[in-house]
Amino acid sequence: VRGIEGDQVLLRIILSESRSLDREPLFRRILEMLRAEGLAGATVLKGVAGFGHDHHIHSLMIEVAARGLPILLEVVDTQERIDRVLPKVDALMADDGVVMTERAHVIRYAQNRSSTDQP
Amino acid sequence: VRGIEGDQVLLRIILSESRSLDREPLFRRILEMLRAEGLAGATVLKGVAGFGHDHHIHSLMIEVAARGLPILLEVVDTQERIDRVLPKVDALMADDGVVMTERAHVIRYAQNRSSTDQP
Amino acid sequence: VRGIEGDQVLLRIILSESRSLDREPLFRRILEMLRAEGLAGATVLKGVAGFGHDHHIHSLMIEVAARGLPILLEVVDTQERIDRVLPKVDALMADDGVVMTERAHVIRYAQNRSSTDQP
Repeated sequence: VRGIEGDQVLLRIILSESRSLDREPLFRRILEMLRAEGLAGATVLKGVAGFGHDHHIHSLMIEVAARGLPILLEVVDTQERIDRVLPKVDALMADDGVVMTERAHVIRYAQNRSSTDQP
Repeated sequence: VRGIEGDQVLLRIILSESRSLDREPLFRRILEMLRAEGLAGATVLKGVAGFGHDHHIHSLMIEVAARGLPILLEVVDTQERIDRVLPKVDALMADDGVVMTERAHVIRYAQNRSSTDQP
Repeated sequence: VRGIEGDQVLLRIILSESRSLDREPLFRRILEMLRAEGLAGATVLKGVAGFGHDHHIHSLMIEVAARGLPILLEVVDTQERIDRVLPKVDALMADDGVVMTERAHVIRYAQNRSSTDQP
């Protein structure tokens, strides 16, 4: 149990699925960094369409080979831990993508407690 | 028309796709409970990767057979109705998963009005 | 670089994948309108299940032929630009769907800068 219940920060990162670093998908590199930094968890969603960048619509039909669909990466953790990883996110993202935060109230963040921890 | 326009609560639940209850996917049980409780609506998204739990990265390639990908279940409704379902969500989630809320301003929540209701 | 860093608005639209206008998926029409209006970007996610409308659970197994899965369309931009597109969103949505906003703090919105723009 990580004990991050309370008012925390939801970090959302949007980038193209097609971006890579050292032949690995960039979103996966960011995910690995977040895990290495000890963040509580992360969820990666893949869009089916979108635009941004230079205002061409990305979709399953258009431009996907060139740019890829949008990836939305979400993390909820304490302000302190989010602040600590933001420079690393920025360094990995380089010259593209969206990074935003929202306020979130964590009601429970209980994961994989052993059965003896249960009430 | 449900008439929940205004400042409401966005409830977000994250759990593993692989969790089940009575041989049914747990996220579907939660969805059925939310519907039975009369909530206005819910949306279920499936992630393509993530981590949490014990800090192993879950992905299409790793661990999926064991744990499954993350499921993100979202509901927007009044504070009162969200508060009413939270204990039931908690009971179904048991010892795993993330539950959080955010503030959301609902501009419209008009669904399936019959044609005679249209302006 | 669009320069929308700071406190902005996250607009979220939920509608059925099966809705169409002039034989085109409605979510794609909304996406095209948002692009034409000069919004900074948009992401479209497709749900795997959900309910709303008349409280039948939509899923890959049930009702999909009739109604389709939920589509979640997200845009982050300035309050001014969101306010400008809302009437157009409303007109396209007609008699169905959910429109909500949340507060989001944009840390970076740097996309496709040419290499000469980079620090």
